[in-house]
Amino acid sequence: MAADPVLPGSAAVIGCGVIGAAWAARLRLHGVPVRAFDPSPEANRILDEVAANAVAAWSDLGLPTDMAPLTICDTIEAAVADVDLIQESVPERMDVKHATLSAVDAAAPHEAVIGSSTSGLLCSDLARPLERPERLVVAHPFNPVYLLPVVEIVGGEHTSEATIERALAYYGGVGMKPIHIKAEIEAHVADRLLEAVWREALWLVNDGIATTSEIDDAIRYGFGLRWAQMGLFETYRIAGGEGGFGHFIRQFGPALAWPWTKLVDVPELTEELIERLESQSDEQSGAYSIRELERIRDRNLAAMMLALEANDWGAGQTLAELRSRFR
Amino acid sequence: MAADPVLPGSAAVIGCGVIGAAWAARLRLHGVPVRAFDPSPEANRILDEVAANAVAAWSDLGLPTDMAPLTICDTIEAAVADVDLIQESVPERMDVKHATLSAVDAAAPHEAVIGSSTSGLLCSDLARPLERPERLVVAHPFNPVYLLPVVEIVGGEHTSEATIERALAYYGGVGMKPIHIKAEIEAHVADRLLEAVWREALWLVNDGIATTSEIDDAIRYGFGLRWAQMGLFETYRIAGGEGGFGHFIRQFGPALAWPWTKLVDVPELTEELIERLESQSDEQSGAYSIRELERIRDRNLAAMMLALEANDWGAGQTLAELRSRFR
Repeated sequence: MAADPVLPGSAAVIGCGVIGAAWAARLRLHGVPVRAFDPSPEANRILDEVAANAVAAWSDLGLPTDMAPLTICDTIEAAVADVDLIQESVPERMDVKHATLSAVDAAAPHEAVIGSSTSGLLCSDLARPLERPERLVVAHPFNPVYLLPVVEIVGGEHTSEATIERALAYYGGVGMKPIHIKAEIEAHVADRLLEAVWREALWLVNDGIATTSEIDDAIRYGFGLRWAQMGLFETYRIAGGEGGFGHFIRQFGPALAWPWTKLVDVPELTEELIERLESQSDEQSGAYSIRELERIRDRNLAAMMLALEANDWGAGQTLAELRSRFR
Repeated sequence: MAADPVLPGSAAVIGCGVIGAAWAARLRLHGVPVRAFDPSPEANRILDEVAANAVAAWSDLGLPTDMAPLTICDTIEAAVADVDLIQESVPERMDVKHATLSAVDAAAPHEAVIGSSTSGLLCSDLARPLERPERLVVAHPFNPVYLLPVVEIVGGEHTSEATIERALAYYGGVGMKPIHIKAEIEAHVADRLLEAVWREALWLVNDGIATTSEIDDAIRYGFGLRWAQMGLFETYRIAGGEGGFGHFIRQFGPALAWPWTKLVDVPELTEELIERLESQSDEQSGAYSIRELERIRDRNLAAMMLALEANDWGAGQTLAELRSRFR
């Protein structure tokens, strides 16, 4: 991140499902007034529930929980007409994205940044119908957006340098860790890694090797803990020892070609596999409602982020920086 | 884990690289005397350095750091002749494993459990030269073994039910979370997921999409934090909302077939790619020595495990159970 953090003066959130509502909560907790648009009758309920979760999580972090105002708007035009940052989080279908972004494009201030929460689509494809595509970036967050710092920033063919700079500044301004991905690919970076794991995990369940619960335990009692503080490469650097990363990779190389994973193929989502996944997941997690699981998750994330803050490391550093702004 | 935890009375560690040495440390911190064998002149140094790291980590956890005695043995026979548990952690080559396990097999008590730390090989293949293959299990840990609870337990064709039960009890006895994988496949479960991520990450670097540092940040500021406390399936269950896991997967299904990941192929480890990985890793982590990175990692893991213990969740529950035994 090169740009200094800048708090946007106001923001619009277009699409208020779980992701859009969590954006609204993060922005409001930072003192940014939010104008929201979503035609769904469920939107208000989701906005309220996610805001309550976000307040609880920030309370766990020891951060102030005052929220800037939320204004529900009847049209996209009314939401975006006078804001610095517009966050689009509508369903992951190109036609829906195009219709939404065109309406945003027609009404947004020329100097506004338009961020799309898309997890898979390309910025250049999203920008196709826009009059002013230079304002559009992909700004892909991870749930819960009010806690997890990461946001992938990806420009398209027409995105201006100024927009990228402003986006990095704004998302940094609301306490995030923007990662500027310099090349456009479907699913950006983090979701490609996730998709790889997801495919392999489905095979493991499909072939009866392990249950959803066993796979989750293999993650969270092992490498998941490691990845909360160091990623793949830094962890393997340690494994390589004093010989350095080149030594490690030269040793590891041949094993790469072993035909271990089943990722050459996509498991067929038969009704049988779906039912197996569903029943295993119920057995694993069915004792809790989704709301309860969200609170458990958020309490754990907050506690681990506090632990990393005390160690001045990783996501804890992002939290420390955020905290310093409230002092 | 069905079996009640049982502390082995004594143990042998065969192969004292980083993994074997960390097994020795975990066993000794639990009060289990360890007999070690490794022909390498480096073995004593590694045993000492890893023991020092383990003591520091247990001190961070607030656990007692007294260690049961370590006896260095000149032969495999002398190491294994009179112990309850033998942990083999020699290099990942079938010929080396076979020679080592045959010597263990010839000298170990009939009722001993022989655990192999292999990350990739099948128990049935490892057992081929053994006279008493019923005693052998794969017991695959994750580094740092003295901190991370997970150990994958996999039997082979000839492994007895009694051995599996005893292995689950012994590894539980030294504060671990044994996961019994019921079917043998190369790389078991956790390393298949890791290999999938590793391949995709190499493509991302190879194709110039992201650097090692950006990929690591995309992990540790985002889904890595989530995975320290809930795995893949429980996280997606939350994403699915009240509709349940079946609803989620039916929605997600079609996206599975999108040609996102490059996992259909293995990147060629050209000298150019190796050098790029090496220089990016140096830039990312070169400010710290491997010893320093190990201590940073261990302090972070200990702090996060304490945070999860306070929340009575996941790896924190394993730690709480372990702590209760020292009271």
